[in-house]
Amino acid sequence: MKITTEQMRFWSPSIRELEPYIPGEQPKIQNLLKLNTNENPYPPSPKVVAAVQGVLENTADVLRLYPDPDASELKRAIAQQQNVDMSNVFVGNGSDEVLAHIFKAFFVQDLPLLYADITYSFYPVYSQFFGVKTKVLPLNDGFEIEVDDYKQANGGIIITNPNAPTSIALGLSAIEQLLQSNPNSVIVIDEAYVDFGAESAIQLTKKYDNLVVCQTTSKSRSLAGLRVGFAIAQPHLITALESVKNSFNSYPIDRFAIAAAVASFEDQAYFETQCQRVIDSRENLVNDLVELGFKVLPSKANFIFATLVEKDAGELAAELREHGIIVRYFNKPRINQYLRITVGTDEQNQRLIDTLKNNILV
Amino acid sequence: MKITTEQMRFWSPSIRELEPYIPGEQPKIQNLLKLNTNENPYPPSPKVVAAVQGVLENTADVLRLYPDPDASELKRAIAQQQNVDMSNVFVGNGSDEVLAHIFKAFFVQDLPLLYADITYSFYPVYSQFFGVKTKVLPLNDGFEIEVDDYKQANGGIIITNPNAPTSIALGLSAIEQLLQSNPNSVIVIDEAYVDFGAESAIQLTKKYDNLVVCQTTSKSRSLAGLRVGFAIAQPHLITALESVKNSFNSYPIDRFAIAAAVASFEDQAYFETQCQRVIDSRENLVNDLVELGFKVLPSKANFIFATLVEKDAGELAAELREHGIIVRYFNKPRINQYLRITVGTDEQNQRLIDTLKNNILV
Repeated sequence: MKITTEQMRFWSPSIRELEPYIPGEQPKIQNLLKLNTNENPYPPSPKVVAAVQGVLENTADVLRLYPDPDASELKRAIAQQQNVDMSNVFVGNGSDEVLAHIFKAFFVQDLPLLYADITYSFYPVYSQFFGVKTKVLPLNDGFEIEVDDYKQANGGIIITNPNAPTSIALGLSAIEQLLQSNPNSVIVIDEAYVDFGAESAIQLTKKYDNLVVCQTTSKSRSLAGLRVGFAIAQPHLITALESVKNSFNSYPIDRFAIAAAVASFEDQAYFETQCQRVIDSRENLVNDLVELGFKVLPSKANFIFATLVEKDAGELAAELREHGIIVRYFNKPRINQYLRITVGTDEQNQRLIDTLKNNILV
Repeated sequence: MKITTEQMRFWSPSIRELEPYIPGEQPKIQNLLKLNTNENPYPPSPKVVAAVQGVLENTADVLRLYPDPDASELKRAIAQQQNVDMSNVFVGNGSDEVLAHIFKAFFVQDLPLLYADITYSFYPVYSQFFGVKTKVLPLNDGFEIEVDDYKQANGGIIITNPNAPTSIALGLSAIEQLLQSNPNSVIVIDEAYVDFGAESAIQLTKKYDNLVVCQTTSKSRSLAGLRVGFAIAQPHLITALESVKNSFNSYPIDRFAIAAAVASFEDQAYFETQCQRVIDSRENLVNDLVELGFKVLPSKANFIFATLVEKDAGELAAELREHGIIVRYFNKPRINQYLRITVGTDEQNQRLIDTLKNNILV
């Protein structure tokens, strides 16, 4: 909407230039194959549904009562599943909210926050929002992080691992190098996609007092519809996050979300099975795309990042959409010839491959 | 927890002095009579439960998909119920989140935000959090707002109406006076409790381009457990809120909360009936307390603010707690001889009265 100068006088000056994050499209059209927002193709554990039913059937009346502002039951379930103490757990309304609190709690410093040029595109948005100074460090030509680049004065470092949208994972030894060379600033590893084959840095939080690891239930736990994310760190860092959270919103996670997420963390077997299914489908999808001539970056995520030399990626995305398949295309420097494609079920992936083979690349 | 100076170096300097909001206690003990957080004593509309069942039964699979980031369906239901256009509606994860976004969007100005000395205690917290300059204006001796006090240079005004914890309502003509004398700053009317007998300023948003009215589903709609709040204003103000929201968290309201809140807004008859029940119970409770010697401020909310000359309010709160009844006590200047008591069912209110009569004031 067009805002006049006169209307703009009501806005806080600091928000007049904001460039908000734009999430992947959530189309309301039926029958589209949605491979654009890295959702899990499988439903959550049946125990999740049962837990919500439990809230409804036994005590529908509790909806009138505020949820536990600390979501202790959820913290306990996460702590148990991740083998940490409850005092190491912070929870929020999706990992986006957890990340927002992280930026406010740790990164508003004199020195700049370091992050990669190609990574989660919400980082520059949070930075502008909270007035965080930033220094953007380019990935190398293979779209990998060069750890040595991060050995410079900074007010914090944030790394998505596996990275998005590149899908490439960084090993724990590289993360330890980063931690050791930056003992005075907070290092955040954003592990939204870690459960699909990368190594989590969570156990390193026991050794390093400046490490925060952030995860979400939206991808590997199939709970994007519910909005639960969390961070793991030593208590002096968790306390900062709680202080920020309690200065913003006392009760960010509702009763259904708490019950559902607890049930998910308690069903480890289902979780592992579903992650493995996605990993297996990913490997098949990559093979099929390579056979069609795509170059695909080595993925440890539930999506792949792929390019085709002979075809413009933007055009390819548009043509796929005409055939009812949505993938994510970023019209940005360095990556504007790539498509980010969420791994679907084998049947969904086959539809993508068939469409490419029979309708587009003919 | 005690944070050492060494650990504190990791915190952003701006958050080291934060004094977070402390919500009313959510005890995990059974059988306590909870009259401390202004929850509705009645459950939400049965249609709310049916709506959540509908999400689960028909399409449990949708939990894996992100919710609509704009929650359009919810905006439509609110717009219809409030007789405004969808473009006048902003929704958030509880009205606390809506208020946080309001502070960031409108109140970070050169001139100070004006608010009352006795009002929602989250306002100073948001102000510190976002760096909002403030000027606190005392209520008069009857705990009422003096509209003339607000005729001074300001960067915004926020008023809880009915006020909390005093329960006293301001009339629409006083609010129009405020709007007319402050055409260049945003005036926010926080109507968390308006449905229990006060007049809403929502229709004034059509006439005034600087008015934002904020409401919640937590009190009159019995949905505190779900976290849905909203604001109504002209589109140039809503756009500012959307810009802030989309720089913080794209998907703040989950699928269950959207479905449940929509069902609540669509069941106007249930809503009106339940509000009237609370109002009727309030009048009985006030009469009974006055009979016991309490002075009770004139309430238009689902709580009352009461004092007893011959008994210290802090002690009284402690004694009530020993008898299994929790009320809210604020150990703050001017109001430390008052108790804020949520209106319960007639049976709950009777338990309070009986306990006072038979066990405490004997």
